[in-house]
Amino acid sequence: MERQFDQELNILKEDLLKMASLAEDAIAKSIKALVERDSTLAQEVIDRDREINLLEIEINNQCLKLLALKQPMAVDLRFITSTMKIVSHLERIADQAVNISQRTLELIKQPLLKPLIDIPRMAKLAQEMVITSIDSLVNKDSLLAKRIGGRDNLVDDLNDQIFRELLTYMIEDPRTIKRAIELILVGRHLERIADLATNISEEVVFILNGKNIKHPNQEK
Amino acid sequence: MERQFDQELNILKEDLLKMASLAEDAIAKSIKALVERDSTLAQEVIDRDREINLLEIEINNQCLKLLALKQPMAVDLRFITSTMKIVSHLERIADQAVNISQRTLELIKQPLLKPLIDIPRMAKLAQEMVITSIDSLVNKDSLLAKRIGGRDNLVDDLNDQIFRELLTYMIEDPRTIKRAIELILVGRHLERIADLATNISEEVVFILNGKNIKHPNQEK
Repeated sequence: MERQFDQELNILKEDLLKMASLAEDAIAKSIKALVERDSTLAQEVIDRDREINLLEIEINNQCLKLLALKQPMAVDLRFITSTMKIVSHLERIADQAVNISQRTLELIKQPLLKPLIDIPRMAKLAQEMVITSIDSLVNKDSLLAKRIGGRDNLVDDLNDQIFRELLTYMIEDPRTIKRAIELILVGRHLERIADLATNISEEVVFILNGKNIKHPNQEK
Repeated sequence: MERQFDQELNILKEDLLKMASLAEDAIAKSIKALVERDSTLAQEVIDRDREINLLEIEINNQCLKLLALKQPMAVDLRFITSTMKIVSHLERIADQAVNISQRTLELIKQPLLKPLIDIPRMAKLAQEMVITSIDSLVNKDSLLAKRIGGRDNLVDDLNDQIFRELLTYMIEDPRTIKRAIELILVGRHLERIADLATNISEEVVFILNGKNIKHPNQEK
């Protein structure tokens, strides 16, 4: 009985890893499509979102079944309930990649505004945050999980920089406004991905330590 | 034992209602502060976020306790696990109100760009979606919950309208760009609130019917 439960927890962890790697892949491809102005790849990201949505439903059902049949306690209970939240974060991360792809399809219709340097850099950081947050869970490394929140500031700084640069384009030439705003929104989608990765890392710390770090100093 | 469990579920529902009304109040006040250029009120929204964060932690702990001690099944199990997700949506809704207030504090430093008509209208819709989503749960009204998703389109349409109007301001006079972008972001915060209310309503349908409507036609 005990061993069967452990096996089922392992299946859950594998599915989580699979979902995280699909989400990471969606981010990478959405940015590749943006940089290379590749509408086929952008469309692929949009179409493959279905797979991630299905995995969310499947993992959720697995969790409910484990809760109902195995009545887990302490760290296992936290792991299962937090997994249900983590998969909804991963699903939203993939949604942001879909949003980026939709912006790409719009941007491709118009001439190139500028070569993209900071956006791919920001995407790389956001991607690493996603995969590290899940790695920290699988490796039970709460120190690693705690460090992820700090990376969020780097992403925010890059986003501010992108915003300010695009602002100067718009002020100099109003014909760039529409395209610049699309790129500003891509920056915000990446910022949201980093936020969601931070949410995941907070759940990981809660699973491992039973402590809420989302609102430090606010626990009664 | 059974009656004690029902009592604890009722306490959970009351806390959920309390949290939803705090979130609704935060949205209303953040928009009032924006329209009336009232920095004291904007700061109040930012400061009161702590209360909502505390409630999230408290409700989460209540849920974990119920899962561990009462081992609920079927609809009760779904209610408790979905409540853990709903409170995280409510917390994020309140965060969006904080974001709006931060934009307000920036906008107040600059001259008024234009009288705000569509943003308060959009806020009203988003607010109603939040409160209706929680009402549909408390009244076990899955039809009401299902209708909330449709209102999301109205909010998106208003947001597009706001975006296009502000775009014309920016094109005509580059000095308005900074302020216009702040208002575009307010629109996006409200859009996020409507999305989060839709997420809540999807959880409500899942609790009541055991069916996932988030990704229709995707359940295996």
